[in-house]
Amino acid sequence: MTNTETRAGFTSPELTELLSGEMRKRWSAAAERTEQMAGYALLAPGKLLRPMLLLASAEATGGDSTHLLPAALAVEYLHVATLVHDDIIDDDELRRGRPTVHAHYGTSDALVAGDFLILNMVSTLAECTAVPPEAVLEAARVLATAGSDVCRGQVREAGLVGDLDCPVEDYREMVRLKTGALFRGACRAGAVLSGATRDHVEAATQYAEHLGLGFQIFDDLLPYLAASPTTGKPATSDVANMRPTFPVLVGYQSADQADRRQFVEALSGRMPAAESHQVMRELLVTTGALDLSRARAADEILEARESIAGLPGTAAVDLMLAIADLSVDRNR
Amino acid sequence: MTNTETRAGFTSPELTELLSGEMRKRWSAAAERTEQMAGYALLAPGKLLRPMLLLASAEATGGDSTHLLPAALAVEYLHVATLVHDDIIDDDELRRGRPTVHAHYGTSDALVAGDFLILNMVSTLAECTAVPPEAVLEAARVLATAGSDVCRGQVREAGLVGDLDCPVEDYREMVRLKTGALFRGACRAGAVLSGATRDHVEAATQYAEHLGLGFQIFDDLLPYLAASPTTGKPATSDVANMRPTFPVLVGYQSADQADRRQFVEALSGRMPAAESHQVMRELLVTTGALDLSRARAADEILEARESIAGLPGTAAVDLMLAIADLSVDRNR
Repeated sequence: MTNTETRAGFTSPELTELLSGEMRKRWSAAAERTEQMAGYALLAPGKLLRPMLLLASAEATGGDSTHLLPAALAVEYLHVATLVHDDIIDDDELRRGRPTVHAHYGTSDALVAGDFLILNMVSTLAECTAVPPEAVLEAARVLATAGSDVCRGQVREAGLVGDLDCPVEDYREMVRLKTGALFRGACRAGAVLSGATRDHVEAATQYAEHLGLGFQIFDDLLPYLAASPTTGKPATSDVANMRPTFPVLVGYQSADQADRRQFVEALSGRMPAAESHQVMRELLVTTGALDLSRARAADEILEARESIAGLPGTAAVDLMLAIADLSVDRNR
Repeated sequence: MTNTETRAGFTSPELTELLSGEMRKRWSAAAERTEQMAGYALLAPGKLLRPMLLLASAEATGGDSTHLLPAALAVEYLHVATLVHDDIIDDDELRRGRPTVHAHYGTSDALVAGDFLILNMVSTLAECTAVPPEAVLEAARVLATAGSDVCRGQVREAGLVGDLDCPVEDYREMVRLKTGALFRGACRAGAVLSGATRDHVEAATQYAEHLGLGFQIFDDLLPYLAASPTTGKPATSDVANMRPTFPVLVGYQSADQADRRQFVEALSGRMPAAESHQVMRELLVTTGALDLSRARAADEILEARESIAGLPGTAAVDLMLAIADLSVDRNR
């Protein structure tokens, strides 16, 4: 990630070191199996994006993120919990090249490990004793709501499997819940914890709304961009799970009958995944859906940038702008 | 449940009506599938024991439970979440004669429904706005810790499958986590939320510790007592899952070699469940384990009763005593 060093101490490499150091301190010497599983999930390679956004949001809105490290970890616990459970649901054996928690420890224990992480989110957030308790409580509400939204999004997503007639708006609402919620939660919680004004809390939240959608649209595109995308899941995962994603829905809507039949076939699960993926890629190019989606993602990122343009904490704002830009960068 | 009416308004029928009425109000008109699943799980027949304990604990320690209804619901959400996930793990099709959530809605959605319930525990607890925020935050810590303990207990329990050599002490520690934790959480949270003194919080917690163990030992016994026990799960569930329970471990420890071989065979999963169950029952009688366990459960209940004997809120104390007695009553 670009090193934006406009103020000593608030750069992404330093935040990453701070966050991963604290994560290691807490989880690398886990004695009990439950904690070992949590540690395995948490200490996997990851960008710690949501914790970083929580801290950045606190600073961007003019506050101090110094005592908010536990809160930042808490949002990562919630995020990783959803990944653990998602991987069980999608039956994915690998995440970022490593065996998933359930592949390594078994499904039953992995299920419990995810629950353990959600509960640790609460107790860890509550460690922020330097923050007024009403603010910590509000942050707890914000993160719990974010988590509930992720759940709603997951259930909606399951209901969309194989449904190419799904209106793009419905898909966008599902994304707002499934992916946007944790970005929203991280940014809003950060602002709340650092005592931001109502307007500033809303600005940080708006940033996250747009970031979340842009991020997900681009995430949906990645399997279809050039070779070796660096996503968390295999490139064929969406077609293999018969999941219509943003570019697929956009493409289907504007496709003629012949192409529509091809979309249906590619998403049917009847073809081998690699073949479906190839067919899908061609359709997205010829229908213009690839370009349209890339433009839409870029628009959302612009909106994200505009939401926080006027906030006082300039070093943190720079970091959030960099994060926004990177979310639609192939090499993220 | 015995109607202890020592003070108008704080009896179990009234509390049950209050709690189930609020539960219905919140969940019976669920619009979205995620909420429908939560409602299905929550509105199932149940004694609402833990919510009742939270409210009783608040009153017993001299406080007012009037504004604690959301907190009481919250602990039930956490409890039911663990049941939803437990049923997935144990692959139980029925709970109290109804299809389990995953049997009804599918495993993936049920998994998410459990997460949704845990997260709702947090946001609902936070509705207690009449309570000082530091007390609500402390209650959140208490319930999150209780939930984490349940997770640890579940993982330990999974590790004990088929292990007849498990020391009774280890089993007891697992129970303390898996079953005791939510009783502990409910009672402690209730006391904390109503502003109880430190000693009173500890008294309520001790009550719950003993209640939890007594409850679980008796729960382990129920499948082996007379015909048609009214437990949540089928009588053959423990042997079918090769799970050594309290009376089984006690019996095995004191058994001779011939009987030990029978214990091993009955828990091996090699015999049909109904037959295993029958063999096990006879062994528990002949080794004296049935009687020993029943006596141990009764001892724990006595300790529970003694823990709260001196607390000021006498109506609530009476209710808690009645709950303790009922937990080792076959007709509970």
